[in-house]
Amino acid sequence: MARRTTQLEEKAERPGGFEFHGYARSGVIMNDSAASTKSGAYMTPAGETGGAIGRLGNQADTYVEMNLEHKQTLDNGATTRFKVMVADGQTTYNDWTASSSDLNLRQAFVELGNLPTFEGPFKGSTLWAGKRFDRDNFDIHWIDSDVVFLAGTGGGIYDVKWNDSLRSNFSLYGRNFGDIADSSNSVQNYIVSMNNFAGPVQMMVSGMRAKDNDDRQDANGNLVKGDAANTGVHALLGLHNESFYGLRDGSSKTALLYGHGLGAEVKGIGSDGALRPGANTWRFASYGTTPLSDRWFIAPAVLAQSSKDRYVDGDSYQWATLNLRLIQEVTQNFALAWEGSYQYMDLQPEGYNDRHAVNGSFYKLTFAPTFKVGSIGDFFSRPEIRFYTSWMDWSKKLDNYANDDALGSNGFKSGGEWSFGMQMETWF
Amino acid sequence: MARRTTQLEEKAERPGGFEFHGYARSGVIMNDSAASTKSGAYMTPAGETGGAIGRLGNQADTYVEMNLEHKQTLDNGATTRFKVMVADGQTTYNDWTASSSDLNLRQAFVELGNLPTFEGPFKGSTLWAGKRFDRDNFDIHWIDSDVVFLAGTGGGIYDVKWNDSLRSNFSLYGRNFGDIADSSNSVQNYIVSMNNFAGPVQMMVSGMRAKDNDDRQDANGNLVKGDAANTGVHALLGLHNESFYGLRDGSSKTALLYGHGLGAEVKGIGSDGALRPGANTWRFASYGTTPLSDRWFIAPAVLAQSSKDRYVDGDSYQWATLNLRLIQEVTQNFALAWEGSYQYMDLQPEGYNDRHAVNGSFYKLTFAPTFKVGSIGDFFSRPEIRFYTSWMDWSKKLDNYANDDALGSNGFKSGGEWSFGMQMETWF
Amino acid sequence: MARRTTQLEEKAERPGGFEFHGYARSGVIMNDSAASTKSGAYMTPAGETGGAIGRLGNQADTYVEMNLEHKQTLDNGATTRFKVMVADGQTTYNDWTASSSDLNLRQAFVELGNLPTFEGPFKGSTLWAGKRFDRDNFDIHWIDSDVVFLAGTGGGIYDVKWNDSLRSNFSLYGRNFGDIADSSNSVQNYIVSMNNFAGPVQMMVSGMRAKDNDDRQDANGNLVKGDAANTGVHALLGLHNESFYGLRDGSSKTALLYGHGLGAEVKGIGSDGALRPGANTWRFASYGTTPLSDRWFIAPAVLAQSSKDRYVDGDSYQWATLNLRLIQEVTQNFALAWEGSYQYMDLQPEGYNDRHAVNGSFYKLTFAPTFKVGSIGDFFSRPEIRFYTSWMDWSKKLDNYANDDALGSNGFKSGGEWSFGMQMETWF
Repeated sequence: MARRTTQLEEKAERPGGFEFHGYARSGVIMNDSAASTKSGAYMTPAGETGGAIGRLGNQADTYVEMNLEHKQTLDNGATTRFKVMVADGQTTYNDWTASSSDLNLRQAFVELGNLPTFEGPFKGSTLWAGKRFDRDNFDIHWIDSDVVFLAGTGGGIYDVKWNDSLRSNFSLYGRNFGDIADSSNSVQNYIVSMNNFAGPVQMMVSGMRAKDNDDRQDANGNLVKGDAANTGVHALLGLHNESFYGLRDGSSKTALLYGHGLGAEVKGIGSDGALRPGANTWRFASYGTTPLSDRWFIAPAVLAQSSKDRYVDGDSYQWATLNLRLIQEVTQNFALAWEGSYQYMDLQPEGYNDRHAVNGSFYKLTFAPTFKVGSIGDFFSRPEIRFYTSWMDWSKKLDNYANDDALGSNGFKSGGEWSFGMQMETWF
Repeated sequence: MARRTTQLEEKAERPGGFEFHGYARSGVIMNDSAASTKSGAYMTPAGETGGAIGRLGNQADTYVEMNLEHKQTLDNGATTRFKVMVADGQTTYNDWTASSSDLNLRQAFVELGNLPTFEGPFKGSTLWAGKRFDRDNFDIHWIDSDVVFLAGTGGGIYDVKWNDSLRSNFSLYGRNFGDIADSSNSVQNYIVSMNNFAGPVQMMVSGMRAKDNDDRQDANGNLVKGDAANTGVHALLGLHNESFYGLRDGSSKTALLYGHGLGAEVKGIGSDGALRPGANTWRFASYGTTPLSDRWFIAPAVLAQSSKDRYVDGDSYQWATLNLRLIQEVTQNFALAWEGSYQYMDLQPEGYNDRHAVNGSFYKLTFAPTFKVGSIGDFFSRPEIRFYTSWMDWSKKLDNYANDDALGSNGFKSGGEWSFGMQMETWF
Repeated sequence: MARRTTQLEEKAERPGGFEFHGYARSGVIMNDSAASTKSGAYMTPAGETGGAIGRLGNQADTYVEMNLEHKQTLDNGATTRFKVMVADGQTTYNDWTASSSDLNLRQAFVELGNLPTFEGPFKGSTLWAGKRFDRDNFDIHWIDSDVVFLAGTGGGIYDVKWNDSLRSNFSLYGRNFGDIADSSNSVQNYIVSMNNFAGPVQMMVSGMRAKDNDDRQDANGNLVKGDAANTGVHALLGLHNESFYGLRDGSSKTALLYGHGLGAEVKGIGSDGALRPGANTWRFASYGTTPLSDRWFIAPAVLAQSSKDRYVDGDSYQWATLNLRLIQEVTQNFALAWEGSYQYMDLQPEGYNDRHAVNGSFYKLTFAPTFKVGSIGDFFSRPEIRFYTSWMDWSKKLDNYANDDALGSNGFKSGGEWSFGMQMETWF
């Protein structure tokens, strides 16, 4: 509550239309010999097709998003917003990272809102153009995965209001497949998307087309993938509750997604140029948060996906992740956080990319003593400083998936791995 | 007008000496098959020597300049200003661009102003040092070309006032030719510049010297260009009118430039290390803006250049661009923008850089429905969100200039090209 | 004084918890032929092991640190601070430096302070985690060298107060040796550090361990350095005076450092993975500032180091730098700055890295007319704009140390070198 008040006061004081926002996590992780270990929400074989596991006590990168915004409200009521995001992700602990720097500009867009000449359904709508993450993307924070992530360069309109309960967004996003520096190696994928909201229900439909994607060449003039799709469709049905599934105080979000062809990468819409015309993917995602008592708070989550004929005719990628995060308040500044994560996967790549067919389970348990300035039981309040210890194990078969992935790599094989570390996480 | 008021209020509220300024454009462009096409203000053969064409409906990159400033005013009246600019330009539409990122620091300088001990001509002058774009550079916005662009690292003084009507700037700028990482491959070009203003008249004179530029070696120890110039001169005569050529309300700027030797790159002073000692370049630039009626606004522009003995004895690069932009106000938030661009070029590279002699014409017509929050008829108010369609055509001979340029490339040959897209542009 | 007032007012006005801070220097340097010359505080053979010389009139890079901070104070008194630093260093004078850009994220950390549930010694302590420069690092500004520089990614606590006069910091920092992209080529070095302050006395003790550093491989699978240390210790005894060595008004800082094994890089603790288990380094550092009169101000400094068995059994790197900076106030906006620097070195690398044994002296004298807005005699007030001329000379033997270093390179040999330039420097 204190924090809420502080935030409101800040907002009122912001001058000159400038705002600074950001996200950051940074910390260290080590194994039980105090040496380097593997980590990451996408470290299992299922991770390659989006199968994230729990992130608590499992991320040691320094990832930072810096957002600079310039906002105006004009006398005629119209508003402008310019946002630029610069981001970087690093796994080195060193303080000079020029040689491995990934600093890049992820967003740069303009929004025009409340245009006084916009009437009827367009009254109060917001026009936008530029490079951006779509405003209405949403994620399951605990597994570091968006449920859906529409992003690219384009334009559109938000909040066309048909009546008191129904509003729609329309957008066109462009994306690129291949190396942009070499024009014969780059194909544009254009995504047309419509996103409708009626009360708690969301219905999103997208179509996409990447002309000549099946004819794309690499830098040496060789065909990249002759069976790649040139078109795709994508749909999402979502439910956004302001309670814990209608049962208790809290919040919950649930979504069912389907994609076909280029749309079969159902999270990062239109971002995968290797998908086949016959690819089909279903995804189910749901999470909720609720207090169990004055001092205990719980957040269960599930993410499951089935993708077939994805990269090779007859392949199959199926996995399901169950995640549970618990907060046990000790004082207003200190809590014990617990996370359990279970993932089952059955992957049949049919030889694609030298991956081998595997099936099996992955387990992770994390215990994280956590310091905060307040709002200790709020799953979404930050900053946090955490100490943690994690234990992971997985089916021996999973070690065999790929030569260059985490599971089964030197010193990181099935049989149980401990890791230890500390980390900060913040957003504002 | 509303916007002007808002800006003044913002300025007054800015605390702590911090200011955020920027420029950004971002959008998508496609051909009539909704696939990738060529674009850019410098896409014609004349573009290599500065021959820009109209930019409206012809730029699909995401280009962003972020300026962070720290300002102080001391009790003794002295002022300090620190400005740093980070910029990036990308042609990929994707939202993670680490592999192609061009993020770099373009400016970092300090200004000291109103020093209380500065008397006589120096009263009110501004000292500066660091890396910067010269304060008094100016451009023709519609063709994305500076008329003159002096930039680099150095120092100087602005606004030495000889009397009520005459003031001068003095500066020293350093630039580098060749790869800075390899010292035998890097030569410093020092530019001494004097810039004088008397009412609307500007007279700028610059001299430059790059010791041993004719002896510069590449990474393999080979001579880069034995006939490269070591010195150069540059002059600009400008006229800055607060009316449309003295005829009507509006504004206009006109300039005549001459450069010799290293000064023969007349826009980017001292930036081209391949120029010959005998190189001569003349440039003429002029543009104006004026209202035609309550709802129509016009901005004609011309940029023409003749450069001889530039890179090879006897070569010749001659071109002229005519550009006309029109705004037709529909509502306070919506306008139709029109742009016509014509360029004639006669290029005789004499075999330099595998370029072929060509002459001919280039045409571009663009229609751009445009949304703004207000000041709809002001050519310089932003942000804008535009939809656009452009049609281009050019003399068949121009397809033959070079193998690696836009005109004549695969799927982009003389005979008429359509493009479509949408874009935002802002500055603040 | 005027400046101090301005700063306090700024602080009070800062809204929304945002702060912008930075450091920057940028300028040009040339030899007496107005061509490129060598410069840098670490340009002598001793520089490789930390032997910095005076920086005035000896740095021509554009180096910028941009700090963005977000701060909050909650109703319960707790404070949060997020700081991110983006930095770049460039030696090119050009204004587009994408190809040589070193922009990178050097710091990203969170601090939680004044937690209301922290009692006893922890009352008022500050928890932190992330990537950072340690808060209590300190430097000798005039020679651009930290006395000690602890940095990396980790966490810790500042200001655990045992009683009114004794307080301690505890921290864990991780660092990496080798190329992080290749896991067999990367080893983590973990540094545990305790830093105690009792009045003006500082006692810092650190231990470190980099498991399998003697088994680290390069990208081709070859052993990097089989005799590299896996552990190390480091200690610093410091004295922070609020007077000029107890003799006069002013300030002074003095430190004695010792390091063994991986701790034998005594400045950048834990940053050098090539050190041997038997390496021993001693360092002594001291500087002070004091006014000599109303118009003269003096700052002497000494930095000396002896390092043995560092990279090869029996090697020895010994050097001492004496530096003296003087400010002669002319007006409140103009001063003459003088700097003399002398360094003696005796380096016996025993063939390591193709370095040759040398001994001898290096001299530098600099004269720098300097402009400031006020506080002209304050060695630590900025911004400054300087013109300068420097003269350097050194023992002929030093030309022979290495083929790829500054001294003895083409056109830069013993016998006296002049350089000229101008530069800005600021921090805020």
